[in-house]
Amino acid sequence: MEITIDGAGKMIHCGRTGYRPAWDQLLGLRLDRRMLVGAALAACFGASTVRAQPDPLPSWNEGTAKKSITDFVARVTTPGAPDFVPVDHRIATFDNDGTLWSEQPVYFQVQFAFDRIKALAPQHPEWRTRQPFKALLERDIKAMAALGEKGLLPIIAATHAGMTIEEFEKTVTDWIATARHPRFDRPYTDLVYQPMLELLAYMRGNGFRTFIVSGGGIEFMRPWTEKAYGIPPEQVVGSSGVTRWHMGPDGTPVLLKEAKIDFVDDGPGKPVGINRFIGRRPVFAFGNSDGDQQMLEWTAGGSGARFMGLVHHTDVEREWAYDRTSPVGRLDKAWDEAVRRGWLVVDMKRDWKVIYPFEK
Amino acid sequence: MEITIDGAGKMIHCGRTGYRPAWDQLLGLRLDRRMLVGAALAACFGASTVRAQPDPLPSWNEGTAKKSITDFVARVTTPGAPDFVPVDHRIATFDNDGTLWSEQPVYFQVQFAFDRIKALAPQHPEWRTRQPFKALLERDIKAMAALGEKGLLPIIAATHAGMTIEEFEKTVTDWIATARHPRFDRPYTDLVYQPMLELLAYMRGNGFRTFIVSGGGIEFMRPWTEKAYGIPPEQVVGSSGVTRWHMGPDGTPVLLKEAKIDFVDDGPGKPVGINRFIGRRPVFAFGNSDGDQQMLEWTAGGSGARFMGLVHHTDVEREWAYDRTSPVGRLDKAWDEAVRRGWLVVDMKRDWKVIYPFEK
Repeated sequence: MEITIDGAGKMIHCGRTGYRPAWDQLLGLRLDRRMLVGAALAACFGASTVRAQPDPLPSWNEGTAKKSITDFVARVTTPGAPDFVPVDHRIATFDNDGTLWSEQPVYFQVQFAFDRIKALAPQHPEWRTRQPFKALLERDIKAMAALGEKGLLPIIAATHAGMTIEEFEKTVTDWIATARHPRFDRPYTDLVYQPMLELLAYMRGNGFRTFIVSGGGIEFMRPWTEKAYGIPPEQVVGSSGVTRWHMGPDGTPVLLKEAKIDFVDDGPGKPVGINRFIGRRPVFAFGNSDGDQQMLEWTAGGSGARFMGLVHHTDVEREWAYDRTSPVGRLDKAWDEAVRRGWLVVDMKRDWKVIYPFEK
Repeated sequence: MEITIDGAGKMIHCGRTGYRPAWDQLLGLRLDRRMLVGAALAACFGASTVRAQPDPLPSWNEGTAKKSITDFVARVTTPGAPDFVPVDHRIATFDNDGTLWSEQPVYFQVQFAFDRIKALAPQHPEWRTRQPFKALLERDIKAMAALGEKGLLPIIAATHAGMTIEEFEKTVTDWIATARHPRFDRPYTDLVYQPMLELLAYMRGNGFRTFIVSGGGIEFMRPWTEKAYGIPPEQVVGSSGVTRWHMGPDGTPVLLKEAKIDFVDDGPGKPVGINRFIGRRPVFAFGNSDGDQQMLEWTAGGSGARFMGLVHHTDVEREWAYDRTSPVGRLDKAWDEAVRRGWLVVDMKRDWKVIYPFEK
């Protein structure tokens, strides 16, 4: 019998389950009745904590990657150890695209935008002759590539703005419920990484608060991250557009999404977003691409023990294999830095027993 | 014996203490072993939950204000009740200045800026002849008033920018530790409201996550809100300046505070900030001035049971008395709306047994 407590306060786990007891977390809390709590919990649950603990990361193969994670967590959660980190400071940040779920052949939010354009096209006959809509509706990949990122902005504006936040949330929720990934013919949220789900739960079981820090849209992620990852809306940091308060004529206020970028949570924007939203430097951070480099550098720059990890996509059979030259999720400079500084680089093919939950 | 669990995951309380057991919270959690948890906890702690519960809001006088709060909390936390709100959605937001601590004779952050100018003046001889510094250093109240809010911006720039976030944090921490309020000759954090501390703890004990949503600077509040209110940095929403990522020549990155406003979390900015940072509409919101009106309107605009409250400063003896004409914390339009819509208006003098913790 054991207890684990989610750092986000979202789950209390008390049963014959997978994680090691977070005694240090319980005892490290600033309670006026600390001893009483410790004694009560020990009396309730202590008797059977001596039983062998099941593996908290069963989808990770034994090896350096897994061991470096569990060793780190043991170091920072052992009371009295030199690297002990109090519960309040146990912040873990995770990139989303390519780190917690797949991102090929295009970022899933881009696919969402494309699907929305197709759905909205009947109401917009003018799109048939206007770029970038024309290229998209005609599936003219060459023309789309020629437009570049800036050329695609009208697609973001047409699909992510000009509506209330609730209307946008509904389009996301509907898409997540119905859209299917072309390669796997499954909902996109089936393409989350089982080893990372285990890692998120393992970190929370050890007193960490787990945050997403993604270049993706904050309002695109929040409708489904709690169900998919156990991460509530307030622990999702992402890019955002401007929203505007508007008081309706009936006295009902709305927040309107405008076609104007407010904050890009990518590259150097990630530490800025972490500081803005979380207000504490992470102790543990995981990414997979050059867009995560500054988040890892910011994490590494703190005093005391820190953990920096990258997912390297090496499994063309079960997922995808890409790195230095990929237009999506490029891993080049951050990889070199990780090797140079001894950060963990997970080799998906070698280190992960399964990729997706449905493989189990 | 009973258990209360802070919604922020910051505190686990297990002892013969003040709050009612948050059974609904425990049982409402989406656990795969829900029943086991319920049974285990009941076995551990259930036997003595029948004892009379001490008053969770002892500094509130009996009356409409107190009753409206406890009635609301009972309605939204009783499983099966028509107004039941799941734990995930129990978001409570609180303004800071004038709602959780005092704000007279000037917002405490303004006093902080003034004190910093005085401390920095020896390094800036040019300030002796340059406005607005000259007026401030000569305590020329008339000249300062004439400068207006915009005229004071150089003071904010000189005290809140041009340094790393850690350097700024240190100036705040040092000031909070040493500065004393002129009227009470006590640290500013002694001037938090005891009834609101009890309310924060009561809400958390009932499964709410408590957030500050303040017009004050986010980085001015975060260094001390956890200790003062039990609210961790990531649950503080506030105004902010632009921060910029900078990689130092030695490979150590810093975040620099720039003299440029990024976001003003006041008035219509409050619902925008709530949406940006929290991503869920509050069920419960408390403010004290016209700057909180839109936060309360946004809270009221949600479906289901909602609670909106205002603190009315009516106690010139123990605190201050001000409302419609005060330059600080003006309460005018929001008051009218509260009366019209039946929101709670707390009369400090009548409803609060004590104002500050040191009165006890």
